[in-house]
Amino acid sequence: MPMKPDAEIEITALPWVPPGAQGLVKDLRVRWALEEAGLDYRVRLVGPERPPGYSEDQPFNQVPCFRDEKVQIFESGAILQYIGEKSDALLPSDAQGKHRAIQWTYAAVSSIEPFVQFRALLNVMFADQEWAEPAKPTFDHYARLRLQQLYGRLGDKTWLEGDRFTIGDLMMVTVLRIADRSGQLADFPTLAAYVKRGEARPAFQQALSDQLAAFRENEPQGEAA
Amino acid sequence: MPMKPDAEIEITALPWVPPGAQGLVKDLRVRWALEEAGLDYRVRLVGPERPPGYSEDQPFNQVPCFRDEKVQIFESGAILQYIGEKSDALLPSDAQGKHRAIQWTYAAVSSIEPFVQFRALLNVMFADQEWAEPAKPTFDHYARLRLQQLYGRLGDKTWLEGDRFTIGDLMMVTVLRIADRSGQLADFPTLAAYVKRGEARPAFQQALSDQLAAFRENEPQGEAA
Repeated sequence: MPMKPDAEIEITALPWVPPGAQGLVKDLRVRWALEEAGLDYRVRLVGPERPPGYSEDQPFNQVPCFRDEKVQIFESGAILQYIGEKSDALLPSDAQGKHRAIQWTYAAVSSIEPFVQFRALLNVMFADQEWAEPAKPTFDHYARLRLQQLYGRLGDKTWLEGDRFTIGDLMMVTVLRIADRSGQLADFPTLAAYVKRGEARPAFQQALSDQLAAFRENEPQGEAA
Repeated sequence: MPMKPDAEIEITALPWVPPGAQGLVKDLRVRWALEEAGLDYRVRLVGPERPPGYSEDQPFNQVPCFRDEKVQIFESGAILQYIGEKSDALLPSDAQGKHRAIQWTYAAVSSIEPFVQFRALLNVMFADQEWAEPAKPTFDHYARLRLQQLYGRLGDKTWLEGDRFTIGDLMMVTVLRIADRSGQLADFPTLAAYVKRGEARPAFQQALSDQLAAFRENEPQGEAA
């Protein structure tokens, strides 16, 4: 596995999150891409009290940040692209293939994720707010519309642009996992199957296993089952 | 001005939108980038009844789509990058400068826009829903938090990475214009000034003028002042 303490690539991750968020924290996207590309990396865990200066690296105080000998960047989409450019595994080299893959990363984080994420939060973070229940039909409508449109576009293809897995699929699968976990894919069987195809990739399995291992090691006292 | 009927680059745009959306439709981002890069383009207007097959080009039935002799793509972020790679004007060539600029386009559309857009919609599209008013404090909180974090990160810099304007600034300014129009920048004077610096650029002025000209030409009967 490419996790190595002396690797040039460093990413940040969280030591622990509640079970509902485990497997969804965004360093998973970057771990997965690094596994697909076969690139070694090391992990710097940043706790709820972020290290001094962390907001200089990540103004929203989130994970992951990425650094190697050449760049220091945040935003999982930007990091996936940078990794994609270092490896043939994730980003086609022809102009159309490359820019379509990039297009799908933006579609995932800006045309799908906000809708399914807000809908998911109505059941979790916002569940005790009086407006959450009456807001559900509206948020359902928009999330389902976007999923329906994506469903139509994917059709019976293996990946978004056909036979080749790219950073666009990697990002879209991780976004759809948010929808899947909150039951939003129940009426979209081919999207659920697309998520399963992504999750079946050995690189995904390794990335998920490594994210979860850190959570197990850093489980707060009293939280163990 | 680079709008030319026989240009190789084609973008799609809407013939008309209500006044509250004029100047915010996303083809503005691409028009602005093309003006900065000095690239000729032509516009294909697509009405409320989209042309047959349009959802093949843009699964969410939105604008803009972009095509030239090499690629056909959607998502404004992906299009800005493609334009950026064709021109030194918008994307630095060193690895750190390039990937930081790309990072800010993702930050704009996924870490800022969803929050300010949903907050803005509570005053407009969702205004007549019973849950809209009680939901405002929560959405205010998240939108303000992200704007505060961006405010801290911009500091007194001219552009996000210092003196050089990039596709990251172009995208961020267009996202912050959504916040500005709905009053969300009132407590963030340096963000409002940053928006004004973007809007003062001749390329922005030309792009805005061209978007608005189409709306004037296609104003529905009975809508004229």
